[in-house]
Amino acid sequence: MKLIKGGTVVGPTGAIPGDVLVVGEKISAVFAPGEGPQEGDFEVVDATGKYVIPGGVDAHTHMELPFGGTFASDTFDTGTKAAAFGGTTTIIDFAVQRTGEVVQDGLAAWHAKAAGNCHVDYAFHQILGGVDDESLKAMDQLVTDEGITSFKLFMAYPGVFYSDDGQILRAMQKARDNGAMIMMHAENGPAIDVLVKQALERGETDPIHHGRTRPEALEAEATSRAIWLASVAADCPLYIVHLSAGKALEQVAAARDLGRNVFAETCPQYLYLTLEDQLGAPGFEGAKWVCSTPLRSKHETHRADLWKGLRSNDLSVVSTDHCPFCFKDQKELGIGDFSKIPNGIGGVEHRVDLLYQGVVDGKLSLARWVETIATTPARMFGLFPRKGVIAPGSDADIVLYDPSARTRISVETHHMNMDHSAWEGYEIDGKVDTVISRGTVIVSGDTYHGRAGHGQFVRRGLSDYLL
Amino acid sequence: MKLIKGGTVVGPTGAIPGDVLVVGEKISAVFAPGEGPQEGDFEVVDATGKYVIPGGVDAHTHMELPFGGTFASDTFDTGTKAAAFGGTTTIIDFAVQRTGEVVQDGLAAWHAKAAGNCHVDYAFHQILGGVDDESLKAMDQLVTDEGITSFKLFMAYPGVFYSDDGQILRAMQKARDNGAMIMMHAENGPAIDVLVKQALERGETDPIHHGRTRPEALEAEATSRAIWLASVAADCPLYIVHLSAGKALEQVAAARDLGRNVFAETCPQYLYLTLEDQLGAPGFEGAKWVCSTPLRSKHETHRADLWKGLRSNDLSVVSTDHCPFCFKDQKELGIGDFSKIPNGIGGVEHRVDLLYQGVVDGKLSLARWVETIATTPARMFGLFPRKGVIAPGSDADIVLYDPSARTRISVETHHMNMDHSAWEGYEIDGKVDTVISRGTVIVSGDTYHGRAGHGQFVRRGLSDYLL
Amino acid sequence: MKLIKGGTVVGPTGAIPGDVLVVGEKISAVFAPGEGPQEGDFEVVDATGKYVIPGGVDAHTHMELPFGGTFASDTFDTGTKAAAFGGTTTIIDFAVQRTGEVVQDGLAAWHAKAAGNCHVDYAFHQILGGVDDESLKAMDQLVTDEGITSFKLFMAYPGVFYSDDGQILRAMQKARDNGAMIMMHAENGPAIDVLVKQALERGETDPIHHGRTRPEALEAEATSRAIWLASVAADCPLYIVHLSAGKALEQVAAARDLGRNVFAETCPQYLYLTLEDQLGAPGFEGAKWVCSTPLRSKHETHRADLWKGLRSNDLSVVSTDHCPFCFKDQKELGIGDFSKIPNGIGGVEHRVDLLYQGVVDGKLSLARWVETIATTPARMFGLFPRKGVIAPGSDADIVLYDPSARTRISVETHHMNMDHSAWEGYEIDGKVDTVISRGTVIVSGDTYHGRAGHGQFVRRGLSDYLL
Amino acid sequence: MKLIKGGTVVGPTGAIPGDVLVVGEKISAVFAPGEGPQEGDFEVVDATGKYVIPGGVDAHTHMELPFGGTFASDTFDTGTKAAAFGGTTTIIDFAVQRTGEVVQDGLAAWHAKAAGNCHVDYAFHQILGGVDDESLKAMDQLVTDEGITSFKLFMAYPGVFYSDDGQILRAMQKARDNGAMIMMHAENGPAIDVLVKQALERGETDPIHHGRTRPEALEAEATSRAIWLASVAADCPLYIVHLSAGKALEQVAAARDLGRNVFAETCPQYLYLTLEDQLGAPGFEGAKWVCSTPLRSKHETHRADLWKGLRSNDLSVVSTDHCPFCFKDQKELGIGDFSKIPNGIGGVEHRVDLLYQGVVDGKLSLARWVETIATTPARMFGLFPRKGVIAPGSDADIVLYDPSARTRISVETHHMNMDHSAWEGYEIDGKVDTVISRGTVIVSGDTYHGRAGHGQFVRRGLSDYLL
Ligand SMILES: [Zn+2]
Ligand SMILES: [Zn+2]
Ligand SMILES: [Zn+2]
Ligand SMILES: [Zn+2]
Ligand SMILES: [Zn+2]
Ligand SMILES: [Zn+2]
Ligand SMILES: [Zn+2]
Ligand SMILES: [Zn+2]
Repeated sequence: MKLIKGGTVVGPTGAIPGDVLVVGEKISAVFAPGEGPQEGDFEVVDATGKYVIPGGVDAHTHMELPFGGTFASDTFDTGTKAAAFGGTTTIIDFAVQRTGEVVQDGLAAWHAKAAGNCHVDYAFHQILGGVDDESLKAMDQLVTDEGITSFKLFMAYPGVFYSDDGQILRAMQKARDNGAMIMMHAENGPAIDVLVKQALERGETDPIHHGRTRPEALEAEATSRAIWLASVAADCPLYIVHLSAGKALEQVAAARDLGRNVFAETCPQYLYLTLEDQLGAPGFEGAKWVCSTPLRSKHETHRADLWKGLRSNDLSVVSTDHCPFCFKDQKELGIGDFSKIPNGIGGVEHRVDLLYQGVVDGKLSLARWVETIATTPARMFGLFPRKGVIAPGSDADIVLYDPSARTRISVETHHMNMDHSAWEGYEIDGKVDTVISRGTVIVSGDTYHGRAGHGQFVRRGLSDYLL
Repeated sequence: MKLIKGGTVVGPTGAIPGDVLVVGEKISAVFAPGEGPQEGDFEVVDATGKYVIPGGVDAHTHMELPFGGTFASDTFDTGTKAAAFGGTTTIIDFAVQRTGEVVQDGLAAWHAKAAGNCHVDYAFHQILGGVDDESLKAMDQLVTDEGITSFKLFMAYPGVFYSDDGQILRAMQKARDNGAMIMMHAENGPAIDVLVKQALERGETDPIHHGRTRPEALEAEATSRAIWLASVAADCPLYIVHLSAGKALEQVAAARDLGRNVFAETCPQYLYLTLEDQLGAPGFEGAKWVCSTPLRSKHETHRADLWKGLRSNDLSVVSTDHCPFCFKDQKELGIGDFSKIPNGIGGVEHRVDLLYQGVVDGKLSLARWVETIATTPARMFGLFPRKGVIAPGSDADIVLYDPSARTRISVETHHMNMDHSAWEGYEIDGKVDTVISRGTVIVSGDTYHGRAGHGQFVRRGLSDYLL
Repeated sequence: MKLIKGGTVVGPTGAIPGDVLVVGEKISAVFAPGEGPQEGDFEVVDATGKYVIPGGVDAHTHMELPFGGTFASDTFDTGTKAAAFGGTTTIIDFAVQRTGEVVQDGLAAWHAKAAGNCHVDYAFHQILGGVDDESLKAMDQLVTDEGITSFKLFMAYPGVFYSDDGQILRAMQKARDNGAMIMMHAENGPAIDVLVKQALERGETDPIHHGRTRPEALEAEATSRAIWLASVAADCPLYIVHLSAGKALEQVAAARDLGRNVFAETCPQYLYLTLEDQLGAPGFEGAKWVCSTPLRSKHETHRADLWKGLRSNDLSVVSTDHCPFCFKDQKELGIGDFSKIPNGIGGVEHRVDLLYQGVVDGKLSLARWVETIATTPARMFGLFPRKGVIAPGSDADIVLYDPSARTRISVETHHMNMDHSAWEGYEIDGKVDTVISRGTVIVSGDTYHGRAGHGQFVRRGLSDYLL
Repeated sequence: MKLIKGGTVVGPTGAIPGDVLVVGEKISAVFAPGEGPQEGDFEVVDATGKYVIPGGVDAHTHMELPFGGTFASDTFDTGTKAAAFGGTTTIIDFAVQRTGEVVQDGLAAWHAKAAGNCHVDYAFHQILGGVDDESLKAMDQLVTDEGITSFKLFMAYPGVFYSDDGQILRAMQKARDNGAMIMMHAENGPAIDVLVKQALERGETDPIHHGRTRPEALEAEATSRAIWLASVAADCPLYIVHLSAGKALEQVAAARDLGRNVFAETCPQYLYLTLEDQLGAPGFEGAKWVCSTPLRSKHETHRADLWKGLRSNDLSVVSTDHCPFCFKDQKELGIGDFSKIPNGIGGVEHRVDLLYQGVVDGKLSLARWVETIATTPARMFGLFPRKGVIAPGSDADIVLYDPSARTRISVETHHMNMDHSAWEGYEIDGKVDTVISRGTVIVSGDTYHGRAGHGQFVRRGLSDYLL
């Protein structure tokens, strides 16, 4: 039994002073300041001067993902430990079905990777790499039996994960029936492949051409198309992943104005980093920031647009799309050919901090900070009320955040299995102070108390955002 | 001390089982089911099978308002008692400054009407009927000293409350500086007056012509204009009152997509009632539903648009614009001339019920129900966290709502001082069961335990919705 | 030499009284009334009470098109004769390259079909059924050497004419370079095929299901996608064929508001006929109106939207998409399976009349009538000033249109090679009176004076609508 | 009798070689090259290498306008002579009714100013400075009897020309009935007056503050409002004058997408000049460019937006809003107080040239050049077919434009009665070579052959743009 005392409890409606009683793995009560138990068999956690927030929920990670002939460099062990250090107490990773494989086999493989290795709780989305009669049936089974209620499709990567519009429509119809969420990587892959080939033929092989060959128009187009297809599927719930571009956001906003079941996430990299400054770094350096959708031009309004979208709730969630690759041997696969650089940025450890910086900078309210990093992802993906809120009965996943301390991000200090940091040198005017996962303090200052295997698989229900 | 036990606590993020401990006038704690105090000096309120929700906050009422040579028929006494019966535990009424009057005198007059007479807590917005150097100074004083942080202007009613665009701009600039909210009655009054005069000259005197002479275009236009003017005032916070029309909603949605500080409310009458079926009732009957903005045509999509706006948060709040007039002697002032019918519908008692019906009908989630009737109005107008949430430290304004009981609305049973009901015969699949105001049970079933004078004036802070 | 005397010359800027002198195959002069030659060696054609308009230019016909195992029932002989009767003196038909074929071979085949058989002048667009390195090279050759300056691609018909988005992008880039126009059949074929298969599996085999399985959303989506892809190709000129749906029009209008090189045509069938009344005719009767894009629902606003688009120039052209099939043996191929019904409606004979009816009905001005049926198609496809205007130096393709006569459309009287009429019983308040093709009167009242072989192939230049 | 021979006749559909025969004041015929009369009693005007275009129609001038205690410096004599030099052969000036005056008296006063003094033909719009029962009746009389079919209202200048929204609505209803066009100066005057007063109070007295106190938002707002009001008046035809801002254009474009009778003009100053470079010139120099609506910021996209609008026909007309004031004594009235600077720029002489430069710069096609400066203004304001086209029967108002010559604009050489030029030093890659007004050559190279009194008043019909 623990009493978290003297802090300011922040939730999606605002901040109130309050004391939180934890009994076992659960929150037992929230008290007005000082009105909790005065004495007894409990430990007091002093939260004076701290924000007491629900543990972060990162709805988009890829531990150990096979990609481009290599694997994402974080295992479920290293990646979830890094998440813990960063104040994220739940991740939703992606189990993968490739074309020709049985969906359930893919899920089983990912369970095998994760089981016993996670430091914080985890759940799975299911990637469908091949929509056919069998995988459509599997969708029902995963929703009903496996606690997997969201399915990701790709409009990009022809020949790898790509689904054509007929396949997408069929999966959407199935989701409309069983209540699942369709998650979409919205980029026009066949058109991008033409641009990539042409760039390489012109000798444009540097990392920046990864971005130049994935223009905003092809993200906006695919976003728009996904929204139209979902309308044909009777307004199937649709969630656009890693939205990066202003005009893609316009598509989402227009759909939401019509009352459509359309949602989107963005990621910290799109809120801060740019085509020119990072992806265009001299030599092959830019490879560190090769991810898809790509970083966008600083000469356009993307970053301001995305912060605005977070405020207006046209962007509902901030995830990391954590998909780390080391520079040495991994990113380097693409020397001389940007299209061979493994796509991904590692960031599971920094999301809570980077978004808090938005609060400091006046771009986001405290309430929206908590909502976008914890409450909404939990509600979006059927984890509420177990995750995402400080509320009696919820899992005691709690972070004490210290607005008077300071974080400096560096490869020297981070806990992700990467030989560089995409955020090297970034400073945050705040710090994750204490992290509690299901009632256990796993991080305290810079000290780690957790362990692989503490994290459990969480079955999810349907999204809370559907009527 | 009271323990509200066994219920389902509903807030803007969803519903959880939980027990609520009330100590004095405040909520002391929220417990996971059964984890509250087991015995001791407290009363148990059995909430089994009930929703436990924050008391409703009605951000738009007009008790005793002088209008068209008569007065709104509810006093602060009768009106707040009716509010209590309907599950509303806070109202924000409008103090009035008329052209040529001193703002503070108007406020004092309204304090005089309300003080000692209210059954539930109350606050004031300030109507500015004449923007000039003096009243602009008064705005600062009211924000700083009086707990009045929102000011209502009228683009309608030339010669009565009307402000011209220059006056509006000046008030918006002042609000931009002191953080206050500008509330706008957005209808183009000068154009409406032309249409009214022409209709009367054609002998079109029936109540339905009240609606026909206030076309959607003139609400949409004024809404758009207010939004443009607010942009000139550096994005001054703007709140559109009683939005009734689809095209007005489009203006608000477009501004919100741009990240603007633009908000809007609608009212139950616009969600359910129509130009043809109510305002167009045979003979003079339609006078019951003469209000401005008017009821809209059922042959257009307004009602569906408004429900959609509530879901998408382009409409943030549901208020009543409670402004009751008796049919006899009051509404009858307009026999033979619809323009003389006092404008207003009484509904302070029915808002919580009518919106709950939207939940039953699948038009709104439980969470959005609570958010639109309580949490958001409290946050919008600086009453959070004292009002609008079930949270430790908040005022113990709590409603137990029974989803298995049933409400039939009728003049026979309502508590407003009106000789008819705008909602006669409407049935709701739910019922306000118990109402607690600042820790005191004031309604229990159909029994009243409250009293005039229990309600206190609440000073408000600035809106929570600004960065 | 002929003097067309006493008529009202109508062009895209309006109507003026004037006399037109024809010398040989060309217009030699236009005179103010009575100021032409008084006597000499010329024939006077009395145009008193008639509109003197440029011969119609039908930019979208399919004579002898192979489709679904059969052939469009009009040959270049029968079809161009019918065109002549209807006041159309130029058609632009489509040469076809199928996947795997050489583009120039397709063009040669169509030249072979048409040469010596046409009654009026003709030109060709080129259908690209397979975009690859060879066909991209062929595009240049056709523009440079063959007078073929427009290329049609299909987003529908996977496995037949379908191009994927990568192929479309490549063709657009080529067109951007050589100045050609990309014409697009904008429907999402892969998604439609899913809906068709599902409908047939449900036993929905009647013609109306042809329309129900091609919903507006999938036309709007493809239209939007084509516009996005053209933007990636540096604003390649894009022309949407047979636009039928309100939301597709919205996409075009939005692009045009941005100043984009985006154009669209509609067809008479979309302006008058509907899903319910024609395609939904009892039994198999609806097969007569199976065409793609399909007729749209009368319960939606499509027809009014399209007339509006013609007025506002968001729709620039009216073509017929003339693609006739007999009911007997041809349309009947789809008894029991709507997907086997050959797609197409015959109408090359009726376009000028049907659009004139829009003038009578107050939906179009006289000037826009001429502009949409003659001037703009000529300018759009590089036929100006030879075709599309009454101007000195232009081909003497002239129609005398009689606004006081009347046309009744029927299979009994039409000249197309069809055993039914899609317009049976339609009456027009006007009539094609006299048709002159390159100086020769080929139709006079109901008498035919033309002949196969009179019509010549016309090489086209680039579109006039590009800067 | 004159034969204009060897030129390229340019009209709104394009350019064709052709010879034009003028008989008396009219065009008698247009011939294919060389097919006109070979010999006889006529003069040959050699147009080889020249564009032969209809004389310009400037639909917005203010000769001798009283404004701010002074008068526009061009009389009808000096101003129309300057117009002639610039290739403009028709102006439409504004007769003025001030509040309290009789409309017909205002018209008579303007007739008195113009009669016998004009060098080219002229017509009048009527300014309504006071809409009331009398002036509404006068609207009918002017349309029926006086050939005045357009009425200008002001949303700016409270206390001078300003009409409130009720007055505007009444005038629009009247125009809807009698077919007249409502022209609107669309700026929110009451709001602007607040900004002006505040700026002056802050000591911001320089000319640039004229622009800063008339922000884009207040032009866009008024434009939007005028469009809404016109919709209430059953889609009364509406013409926005001197549109200068991108967001105002968006309002017009949106209305046109809906098929509304909404039109707009812009002026050369908005296409080329800017807030910073001209209005912000050092010291009091910027006073030369004080006009309303004001020049806009070069850091925004206004100029590109306006050129785009001209191409897309969302802007239909280019007028000058010619309203010249000398710097000395006139503009200088506003030294120390920008609000006292007479509003206006003189440019009647340069419109045809400045727009031709747009053709040279690739911003406009030849056809759109002629359409926007001549054909459309003539059709818009009921002058077609007498003016605006090279067509048999039309007035022989013809300009020979030399694309190989060059024009340098300067106060040294211009013919307007101004002591400076707003376009000093601008060079045009083309030149007005010969100007013919109703059959008489009035300008030939730099030589003037015209005379005051040649120009006649032209009664106008209703706009051609209405169905
Ligand atoms: Zn929105
Ligand atoms: Zn990912
Ligand atoms: Zn009110
Ligand atoms: Zn097609
Ligand atoms: Zn448009
Ligand atoms: Zn076709
Ligand atoms: Zn003006
Ligand atoms: Zn003017």
